[in-house]
Amino acid sequence: MNSLPKAPVTVLGLGPMGSALASTLVENGHPTTVWNRTASKAEPLVAMGATAAATVDEAVHASPLVIVNVIDYDAVDAILGPVAHELTGMTVVNLTNDSPDRARAMARWANDHGFDYLDGSIMTPTESIGRPEAVFLYSGSEELYEKHRDTLSTLGGTASYLGSDPGRAASFDVALLDIFWTGMTGVAHSFALARAEGITPTEFLPFAQGIVELVRDIAPEIAKHAELGEYPGDDSNLISTAAGLTHIIHAAQARNVDASVLRSVVGLVDQVIQAGHGGDSFSRMVEAFSR
Amino acid sequence: MNSLPKAPVTVLGLGPMGSALASTLVENGHPTTVWNRTASKAEPLVAMGATAAATVDEAVHASPLVIVNVIDYDAVDAILGPVAHELTGMTVVNLTNDSPDRARAMARWANDHGFDYLDGSIMTPTESIGRPEAVFLYSGSEELYEKHRDTLSTLGGTASYLGSDPGRAASFDVALLDIFWTGMTGVAHSFALARAEGITPTEFLPFAQGIVELVRDIAPEIAKHAELGEYPGDDSNLISTAAGLTHIIHAAQARNVDASVLRSVVGLVDQVIQAGHGGDSFSRMVEAFSR
Repeated sequence: MNSLPKAPVTVLGLGPMGSALASTLVENGHPTTVWNRTASKAEPLVAMGATAAATVDEAVHASPLVIVNVIDYDAVDAILGPVAHELTGMTVVNLTNDSPDRARAMARWANDHGFDYLDGSIMTPTESIGRPEAVFLYSGSEELYEKHRDTLSTLGGTASYLGSDPGRAASFDVALLDIFWTGMTGVAHSFALARAEGITPTEFLPFAQGIVELVRDIAPEIAKHAELGEYPGDDSNLISTAAGLTHIIHAAQARNVDASVLRSVVGLVDQVIQAGHGGDSFSRMVEAFSR
Repeated sequence: MNSLPKAPVTVLGLGPMGSALASTLVENGHPTTVWNRTASKAEPLVAMGATAAATVDEAVHASPLVIVNVIDYDAVDAILGPVAHELTGMTVVNLTNDSPDRARAMARWANDHGFDYLDGSIMTPTESIGRPEAVFLYSGSEELYEKHRDTLSTLGGTASYLGSDPGRAASFDVALLDIFWTGMTGVAHSFALARAEGITPTEFLPFAQGIVELVRDIAPEIAKHAELGEYPGDDSNLISTAAGLTHIIHAAQARNVDASVLRSVVGLVDQVIQAGHGGDSFSRMVEAFSR
């Protein structure tokens, strides 16, 4: 058991994620004050040992470190705006997801009001909080990150400090969500196509997971090509990609499985082939998407 | 060293994959006969110890086991059609990728001509052949698969026998390619979006790989929901998915990164929400894609 006193923390926002953050802090011995617009959300946390604040004003005065996790930055503005003048000298760690530009704007607003601001993103599901598999990204002042590192590490898993630009965590976040949702779409669509061919999701699962690992293993080559701006096309090229995609689209259509996402992909690949890059590697698409 | 004599094998088609198959057989001591429409492709293999056949007819008479790897089944038809009557009593293992229906039709055609037929798919890149990371899928007669199992295992990696329906390997193949190309699209697009935000592919790579692993780890839940036809939406739901996707689309558009694939995904998700399933898990899309 660690006998050092733990830093008090206030958590604003008690949706599933905010509640997971707050309960992890309580479980780890941090004096934890919680607030939510719908006050009843605080009840299970109070039962665990948290203190419920009746107002945001009361909540932000309870701890020098305030963690915010709400639906979006409009909600952050609505909650912190009225108490901004009370935050001078304090630290706000904003774990709400929004765009890089909004993160930067909020950092400027914090600076104007004389409080410290760290922007963060949580990349893993609610169940991961407090556990080794959690992934947190932070950006903003490095000194500030180091100051609160121990408390933040209580939230679990791996925390990465990404740099002083406060928009950087949000930039990583949005690009990682891009992989996540596109990949999830591929998995769901493949289960639909497999089932249309008489293969159950349970039978298909281990093979699906193997192919997802293949995508992970090929990613370094995509990164290398994109970094060099060279797309050698020696192993496979965009013409073979388009042929493969067309083959999947035909198989889907033959079984009345929607193929609109794949058609969108092959449409973009065809444009790049038409522009004369058919012999290039698929990694050429990194450049093509930016046009 | 294994002193048992190795079975003679003929390989038809010497593109990058066919050449990798043939060279692996030669390296493992199989008497290997090769043929390709463009004869010069055989030269490096002959230098390794393979025998080049001048015609398909000569090639199929050289070994009782014939492996075919060409661009598609039209090419298989063009190559084997004229010699079909010579194949009686022999075995053809077709490692050419095409649709499940064409695999089934070819199995019937083989049966009509009195030769044995096994359909297979290679799920890993050329470089994997002969190595532990190779993945082969087979379907057709189990007895036939067992008879040639030792020779086929020479090609490397994991071989899975998927059942007696000769279209089954192709069914798995097309659904796995679906995950592969959709996933690769997500990776390439995320590198484009990250770069537009000032994050280099090299910096972004380890985070990208972590998210691909998260997709792998969530896949069992998608499979479970799809199997049960129950999409609880307790952790996250389609409304939050649509919000997340819209957020990525805005970020992409703000940096002139093409967002058409993501727009196609959110369009489908929105239809499912409109149909009254907004509170369901993303796994509902497995069912939605099949409508």
